[in-house]
Amino acid sequence: MTNSSDKMDKIVALCKRRGFAYPGSLIYGGFANSYTYGPYGVELKRNITDLWWKTFVRDMPDVFGIDGDIILHPKTWEASGHLEQFNDPMVEDRDTGHRFRADHLIEDQLGIDAEGMSLEEMTKLIRDKGVTSPTSGKTNLSEVKQFNQMFSTEMAKTSEGSKAYLRPETAQAMFLEFKNIVDTQRCKLPFGIAQIGKAFRNEITPGNFIFRRLEFEQMEIEYFVKKEEWEKYFDLWHQRMDDWCEMIGLNKKNVHIYEHPQEKRSHYSEKTIDIEYDFPFGRKELYGLAYRTDFDLTQHQKHSGQALHIHDEESGQKLVPHVIEPTFGVDRTLLALLVEAYQEEKLEDETERVVMKFMPRLAPVKVAVMPLMKKDGMTEKAHEVWKLVKIFGNCELDISGSIGKRYRRQDEIGTPVCVTIDYETLEDGSVTVRDRDSMKQERVKIDELEDTLRMKYFRVCHSEFISESHTTLNKKLNQR
Amino acid sequence: MTNSSDKMDKIVALCKRRGFAYPGSLIYGGFANSYTYGPYGVELKRNITDLWWKTFVRDMPDVFGIDGDIILHPKTWEASGHLEQFNDPMVEDRDTGHRFRADHLIEDQLGIDAEGMSLEEMTKLIRDKGVTSPTSGKTNLSEVKQFNQMFSTEMAKTSEGSKAYLRPETAQAMFLEFKNIVDTQRCKLPFGIAQIGKAFRNEITPGNFIFRRLEFEQMEIEYFVKKEEWEKYFDLWHQRMDDWCEMIGLNKKNVHIYEHPQEKRSHYSEKTIDIEYDFPFGRKELYGLAYRTDFDLTQHQKHSGQALHIHDEESGQKLVPHVIEPTFGVDRTLLALLVEAYQEEKLEDETERVVMKFMPRLAPVKVAVMPLMKKDGMTEKAHEVWKLVKIFGNCELDISGSIGKRYRRQDEIGTPVCVTIDYETLEDGSVTVRDRDSMKQERVKIDELEDTLRMKYFRVCHSEFISESHTTLNKKLNQR
Repeated sequence: MTNSSDKMDKIVALCKRRGFAYPGSLIYGGFANSYTYGPYGVELKRNITDLWWKTFVRDMPDVFGIDGDIILHPKTWEASGHLEQFNDPMVEDRDTGHRFRADHLIEDQLGIDAEGMSLEEMTKLIRDKGVTSPTSGKTNLSEVKQFNQMFSTEMAKTSEGSKAYLRPETAQAMFLEFKNIVDTQRCKLPFGIAQIGKAFRNEITPGNFIFRRLEFEQMEIEYFVKKEEWEKYFDLWHQRMDDWCEMIGLNKKNVHIYEHPQEKRSHYSEKTIDIEYDFPFGRKELYGLAYRTDFDLTQHQKHSGQALHIHDEESGQKLVPHVIEPTFGVDRTLLALLVEAYQEEKLEDETERVVMKFMPRLAPVKVAVMPLMKKDGMTEKAHEVWKLVKIFGNCELDISGSIGKRYRRQDEIGTPVCVTIDYETLEDGSVTVRDRDSMKQERVKIDELEDTLRMKYFRVCHSEFISESHTTLNKKLNQR
Repeated sequence: MTNSSDKMDKIVALCKRRGFAYPGSLIYGGFANSYTYGPYGVELKRNITDLWWKTFVRDMPDVFGIDGDIILHPKTWEASGHLEQFNDPMVEDRDTGHRFRADHLIEDQLGIDAEGMSLEEMTKLIRDKGVTSPTSGKTNLSEVKQFNQMFSTEMAKTSEGSKAYLRPETAQAMFLEFKNIVDTQRCKLPFGIAQIGKAFRNEITPGNFIFRRLEFEQMEIEYFVKKEEWEKYFDLWHQRMDDWCEMIGLNKKNVHIYEHPQEKRSHYSEKTIDIEYDFPFGRKELYGLAYRTDFDLTQHQKHSGQALHIHDEESGQKLVPHVIEPTFGVDRTLLALLVEAYQEEKLEDETERVVMKFMPRLAPVKVAVMPLMKKDGMTEKAHEVWKLVKIFGNCELDISGSIGKRYRRQDEIGTPVCVTIDYETLEDGSVTVRDRDSMKQERVKIDELEDTLRMKYFRVCHSEFISESHTTLNKKLNQR
């Protein structure tokens, strides 16, 4: 294939050209690395979140879904530590007003690792060594200050104490609802609360297409366990996350584990691993798995004055559970799938094609139905067949352009199978079924089309292979 | 039944008790009428948005889905008119810092309709007539000022011009992407762009449970048409919205049309109707359908300097299309379904039951599987049957408590069918299938369970009855 940055450029271009993702607010010149998912991107995203919800919520009797607000009570962020600790060290160019990460400037211009430096030390270093602003090239930089990464806003209702924040992670709503879930869902340890939703981080260095965005979507689980069992369930969730990567079609050789050394862990965590993926721009965090101890529930107890414990039948004690947190980024999953699927192939006739080899269950379009020509009733027949096949999900009626061009277009969208209506169809009720990967074509009777497609591409997959320890299963069976 | 405010109180209580919706940030005393959907609320919500997406996007070849950001380029709101016109007249209590709607105070305390009054007129009236603050009871109120209903925030990246807004409607992203969709999806008029997502309004009078929230979810379509055809497509979408109401099970007698008189229409609209629903707290807006003219595209052309037109093949002209906008509130749909489904029934033995009569395809739990007792392998058998039935969607393994209590609980959640495993099951492989509405029970062999349930409750519904005019269909067939 091509080299890595080439590949990334090609994927970004394909996304815009075909309608997976457009730069956000583009008519106004773009905005803060925002992106809009187009018709195929939004389908791919829905397929990811639907499969995740099925796998980790609907198929797991001990995981309970919720959907909380983006703007929570501001005390949430006092308790969680985000108000005090979720900061970046920043300097401002006094001439242009632009802000930069102080630690990044020091690393880039001086080659010194700023990890662990105080604000005063960074300020001194920047002044002494003449670090310059990337926009103006001058040394007129402010002192280094902490800048909180949460987006803040003001509530209309009162003028005082009205500051509120957009959540920087979906996790906290699950801690706030811990008591409600325990009270209404009759759960015993271990059990989980799951949520899919947007989170916001006011960073100044977003980038790498949809990899790092100010506004991004998370799929998270807070899994509550007894303190003495945390390692067991950490390992179980690690296994389940590996299974998920396999299930969505990521090649094992592109997926790696990175364990955070103590000094790089978040303030709440005692063990954290990243599941990393080999993106064209480097090996980067795809998912995270953290042991958050009882930090969050304990903090919320302290700040709210409410008891957040669960009655343990075995010991007869009330206890504050510990938490294992698997986090999955939706946008990063989507990007990994794009990278994994992208293929350039040289064909027999020496031409090249680009093909997105998505798994059928994740492909944005399941089946494209094409009349060979727009006449003699082929279009109407195609419409009938389209109605038939759309039980498999999103299907397309692809009418304009030469048949060859339409196949190329569907290859670039990653449609696993194309069905073509031609003169033979009108005579004998058979259609051409063309396979995306092999490009082989076969004739199938319309009557047998549903069964053929189901067997070959869309057999329901029960995702039963997500790891389930014997212990968990038994516990599940005895709860509720 | 009971009276209306009773009914609402009971629904709210059931939602909290069973896990449909909890007051948000409750451990901190609640927050700004926010709510968290619990395990059953989030399933109901997913079923609503999934059905809507299938009906209006996947099943309509001329509607293209997108998913844009909540924080768009701030110029968007200059162009749309929201920065200038999306205001409430407010006064502040100078003692307590609380803010109030000036027009509401005038109406409540003086019985005068403040519609159309200037800020100065309202200020004078409040001072002259001694209008008081509802919190302090004193007249120490500020002047009346316009307060913009958009939540604002600051971007970290720059210090100047860094103000941005949370979108107050999902619509604008669809106008920003108009050109991208036209360029990449080969569309001809008429065609639509659809989006589901959150919107935010910084109001001071939210209320009525999940009816009016600061943070809410919309399902919207911007349908682009030729100017001279707007009435035809307005009527078609009106019909489709009626069909949707029927499809989700709203009783026709509870659904009404209200056409906005000119002075109540938004600044961009030339015709607007509300689809209203008889909630227990009154007849209120459920959905909206607006003819937005070419206002938005024209405004964005002006503010962005980009041409936002489409080439019309019939006339050979470039034209800026006009827009029909059907808007569906997700939270309001959910509330209407709760209200519609809620039933209190007197049973033969003189006891009462509460039952939520959701349609099977929208019910949060499709099938509840229950072992009669937790012994003799019934729990394991129930687990097997649960694995079998969950092809229909979210299913529950309901194990604890007497069988009668479990049936009552499933009635309150609205589960259409319960399957019970008992001693006979272990002998002859048959289970008890209990219908929620009739409470009748029948024995079915496990081998025949899937077919029985599919035929009776979960036949795939192709939603073909959403109105399709002959013209639209023909147009669809000739595009792409």
